[in-house]
Amino acid sequence: MHHHAPRSTPPPAAPVVPLGGGRRGIGPDDLRLTGGFWGELQERNANATLKHCLEWMERLGWIANFDRVADGDTGGPRPGWQFSDSEIYKLAEALAWEYGRTGETWVNEALEALTGRIAAAQDEDGYLNTCYGHAGQPGRYSDLSSGHELYCVGHLLQAAVARVRTVGEDKLVDVARRAADHVCREFGPDGNPGICGHPEIEVGLAEFGRALGEPRYSEQARVFVERRGRGTLAPIALLDASYFQDDVPVREAEVWRGHAVRALYLAAGAVDVAVDTGDAALLAAVERQWARSVERRTYLTGGMGSRHQDEGFGEDWELPPDRAYCETCAGIASVMVSWRLHLATGDVRYADLMERTFYNVIAASPAEDGRSFFYANPLHQRSAAADVRPDAVNPRAEGGVRAPWFDVSCCPTNLARTLASWQAYAATVEENTAEGDTVSLLQYAAGEMRLALAEGELALRIATEYPHAGTVRIEVVDAPARSGLRLRVPHWADGATLSDGSGERDVEPGWADVRGPLAPGAVIVLELPTAPRLTWPDERIDAVRGCVAVERGPLVLCAESVDLPPDQSLEDMRVDVSGPLRAEGDGALVRTRSAPARTESPGRPPYRPAPPTGDAGPERELRLIPYYRWARRGGSAMRVFLPLA
Amino acid sequence: MHHHAPRSTPPPAAPVVPLGGGRRGIGPDDLRLTGGFWGELQERNANATLKHCLEWMERLGWIANFDRVADGDTGGPRPGWQFSDSEIYKLAEALAWEYGRTGETWVNEALEALTGRIAAAQDEDGYLNTCYGHAGQPGRYSDLSSGHELYCVGHLLQAAVARVRTVGEDKLVDVARRAADHVCREFGPDGNPGICGHPEIEVGLAEFGRALGEPRYSEQARVFVERRGRGTLAPIALLDASYFQDDVPVREAEVWRGHAVRALYLAAGAVDVAVDTGDAALLAAVERQWARSVERRTYLTGGMGSRHQDEGFGEDWELPPDRAYCETCAGIASVMVSWRLHLATGDVRYADLMERTFYNVIAASPAEDGRSFFYANPLHQRSAAADVRPDAVNPRAEGGVRAPWFDVSCCPTNLARTLASWQAYAATVEENTAEGDTVSLLQYAAGEMRLALAEGELALRIATEYPHAGTVRIEVVDAPARSGLRLRVPHWADGATLSDGSGERDVEPGWADVRGPLAPGAVIVLELPTAPRLTWPDERIDAVRGCVAVERGPLVLCAESVDLPPDQSLEDMRVDVSGPLRAEGDGALVRTRSAPARTESPGRPPYRPAPPTGDAGPERELRLIPYYRWARRGGSAMRVFLPLA
Repeated sequence: MHHHAPRSTPPPAAPVVPLGGGRRGIGPDDLRLTGGFWGELQERNANATLKHCLEWMERLGWIANFDRVADGDTGGPRPGWQFSDSEIYKLAEALAWEYGRTGETWVNEALEALTGRIAAAQDEDGYLNTCYGHAGQPGRYSDLSSGHELYCVGHLLQAAVARVRTVGEDKLVDVARRAADHVCREFGPDGNPGICGHPEIEVGLAEFGRALGEPRYSEQARVFVERRGRGTLAPIALLDASYFQDDVPVREAEVWRGHAVRALYLAAGAVDVAVDTGDAALLAAVERQWARSVERRTYLTGGMGSRHQDEGFGEDWELPPDRAYCETCAGIASVMVSWRLHLATGDVRYADLMERTFYNVIAASPAEDGRSFFYANPLHQRSAAADVRPDAVNPRAEGGVRAPWFDVSCCPTNLARTLASWQAYAATVEENTAEGDTVSLLQYAAGEMRLALAEGELALRIATEYPHAGTVRIEVVDAPARSGLRLRVPHWADGATLSDGSGERDVEPGWADVRGPLAPGAVIVLELPTAPRLTWPDERIDAVRGCVAVERGPLVLCAESVDLPPDQSLEDMRVDVSGPLRAEGDGALVRTRSAPARTESPGRPPYRPAPPTGDAGPERELRLIPYYRWARRGGSAMRVFLPLA
Repeated sequence: MHHHAPRSTPPPAAPVVPLGGGRRGIGPDDLRLTGGFWGELQERNANATLKHCLEWMERLGWIANFDRVADGDTGGPRPGWQFSDSEIYKLAEALAWEYGRTGETWVNEALEALTGRIAAAQDEDGYLNTCYGHAGQPGRYSDLSSGHELYCVGHLLQAAVARVRTVGEDKLVDVARRAADHVCREFGPDGNPGICGHPEIEVGLAEFGRALGEPRYSEQARVFVERRGRGTLAPIALLDASYFQDDVPVREAEVWRGHAVRALYLAAGAVDVAVDTGDAALLAAVERQWARSVERRTYLTGGMGSRHQDEGFGEDWELPPDRAYCETCAGIASVMVSWRLHLATGDVRYADLMERTFYNVIAASPAEDGRSFFYANPLHQRSAAADVRPDAVNPRAEGGVRAPWFDVSCCPTNLARTLASWQAYAATVEENTAEGDTVSLLQYAAGEMRLALAEGELALRIATEYPHAGTVRIEVVDAPARSGLRLRVPHWADGATLSDGSGERDVEPGWADVRGPLAPGAVIVLELPTAPRLTWPDERIDAVRGCVAVERGPLVLCAESVDLPPDQSLEDMRVDVSGPLRAEGDGALVRTRSAPARTESPGRPPYRPAPPTGDAGPERELRLIPYYRWARRGGSAMRVFLPLA
């Protein structure tokens, strides 16, 4: 283990608290959101999504799987996939954060009820899984490639982290400790040399070890990270070892590949291990993978995963907008990695990518009622999808409409735990800087922030309609004698200004340090430009050659066919960028012409001896709306990248 | 059953012999290829591929699965997928056609040896499958969605068709008859109302019924076609009913969708049923599906299937070149459908698509030694693939190199049976026309053709280096008193000329009737233009916007990175089409400039606030070669569609 300077303040009640590094996040209770973009998403999560997930998993029998194990009734058919336990754990984590944030009684009661049923299914020796290891079931760890047993434990540990950091040790934490002890005994240096086909145990053990101060767990996380990439997992038919990142050791890999969520969970765990053990080479490896993958394998929305086939990253520059998988869970996992890298390095680029992903992947998933979700988040939908039935399990992760539940339903509960703890990613505290502790605001949301710093409490009142407007007004309510404050100026914010005690000035993308004393009553105003702007894809992205996108602030915009008159088609729109873009609401209006006349050749493949010619049709205006709101008015064709006239 | 005029000549020994319609194909023994493009492919198939498939299936134990059933030794693990029997049947079909074509002793011996082992595994009641229905195996027809039992029988019947039409009834035919009888009993109107997840039994039963004159088989084919599309197949996880075309009845569908090979085998069977029963509406339905799918869901190569995920068609205009699946088997299946539609209607467009598919999908699959194969046939490979080991089973259908065998290895044996019977698709005979019987030449290959017409034998000597040169010289060696001859002028052949007894004249794409008497010694010369030409994709194909392709005659060309100096990259090439294209060998040279200078933004997603600018770099020439030969010089990056400067 690496040795660290002692903390000057207690650790935050946050999902990620590295043992060292001198930079920490904040707890979800350190920032109370007061409405606004994230406040509303969080309220909807609290009031609708949590219960929705609970109801669906009760109805489908996924929770009752624990009862069947407890009752010794495991012979018959078992509903759900082999990894369905993890959904209950992710919901438990969401409930734990939610209770930590609000103290709502029903939330705690729901979590305690779940905990009781989970605990009753735990075997004497700590093993806990409803699909393996009991009468009539396959044996424990009999299918490490596909069985997801360690993956499920990893999610249990993350739930326990949320619990121990918000209310302290309880039954859930006890269950998790016994499960973690079992894993360490079973898979320790002298035990089973295997790894899990789906990474997650690494990040779970690392954080649970941090939360309990138990170095055995952290060490086991390190062992799992180091074992991976050596081809020990039995192949899954039609997939190669890169699917579960067992092709190249983490510290040797150059880029993320294979199943996106697996690659990203593994990377998050590797950062935890690197930070806690002071392994600079491992940290540098993940940073390198992040950079290459962001530069060449990431969508404009921040989405990751170009292939439906294996829910995976494609090759460099393989970024088709129509078949973009961009799983909601991969967006969440990307935030997990970037957050850990930001805490480890302080690099603003990680926070920039988190913002892009928050607004254009994570916020896009839930419907307005918090009871249906996008699983895949494509950037192009050719034809309007039919609505799904509100009581239907959606077989696939596609379709262009949000669905209440999925056959593999990882995204709703993942979203629930992320939204319940969203504030954790909004700011950091850097200890012992020249100004005392320095607070960095990373994400902008209206709310009241109260942070315990070394020399006292810093309280800020943040007012903003961000991202729908670019003004962020920060009033200092209370402040210690010495503290620093700096604001992230997003990389797209060309022309931002900052007003503080030293007057108004232009600020460049990156960090803007607030000048002048942070005293009660001081007001700081950051103005971020939110006029619509054109964004051009790299020429190497073949799938969007000859196209342009439009963004406003952190929001990617898109065109929807529901905004077109019936005689017009989205596929015929060609954007004229010779004039200025016009703002409309929080979207934009762009000038278009229709596509040139076409030569139809009945019964011939769609390739012609001459390019299309003819009149480009009348000029029209095409409405663009924020991408995160697409398909809220029913199924619709949609495009983010618009072909140029 | 529909009633037909009696034939004036015996039916050809061909894969497809409709009961009526007055137009028939020719048998593989009616045209002896003398070298040339298809002659060489066929020789390589005979001398290498047939033995290669036999050796691999023996080595992997797929043939021994029949022995295990015969020996009552079915308790243990069984090598191969549940559908591996079909590979043995496809190889049997290939051997049957090959023996019919050449009379080679070893071919007949190999087929008889296989037949003996197959026959020994047949149950008393005619059921035949090595994966289901015996001790320690799942029950018969216990998994119609995935079990492929009827699919396997369909391939057995196609093998028996080849046998009965080339040598007459033998043991293989007897085995097939008992299997077909079993299927009719089991799945007849009063029996199991199910269908097979993978169509193929339809086309097998229909043709076997034709070959034996057994209307029960044809009727059962009709029943299977009509039952489909009504949602009776149990869902396969993560796939919907369109995957196996159980979403919409065949006669109601507008377009092909789902798994491409399944969709196309079903369509082929539906044409057989429509023709044999005189069901004009069903025939029109398949014609409509063909037209819509060809116009909007077909690659420049003729390849079909845009998605790896389900080996399936995508949506209209979803034609990514990099992730094109274009399975070799789907190319073969497309030929099966187009051939049946051509026989039914005489429409030249079907033969045009067959040519495109023959040269740019089917011919692309086998390596020069006939011992490795492409499974997927993408139109864009971003990075050069590593070679596969010559003894390795390739886990996946991708990779940019030909592989000796695949985990799912449907393509090698499918290719073998298709190449062994390729001549069958080269010409048709239309009976009782004004000129007596009229012969239509559809595909051009050097060889000796001898056709038994109503009034005597027509013998032609065809000399051509097609497709590498555009001259086709046809000498009449023998001819009856009355007969007609016409030549297909491909749809791309702008500027073709024909010399015959009436002199030389321009001919338009479509049919060119030969004028003047067809008498011994007459010489007809068709000149097809084979200069390189530009081909422009429809504007609605998003994935190749701003690109152009180059073709020569029936050959699609491509650029390979192995032809570039080490300091140049295929992704940087931008084609300048302002000047003429230059022919080089059977390829072309195009002028290019390198892409504009790029703005790199480390750690940022690949989207910029301004389009790329700067010097476009020096002019260079880029070499293009026929697509079917790509990756023959080792792994290579490759592009068919070239971005425009």
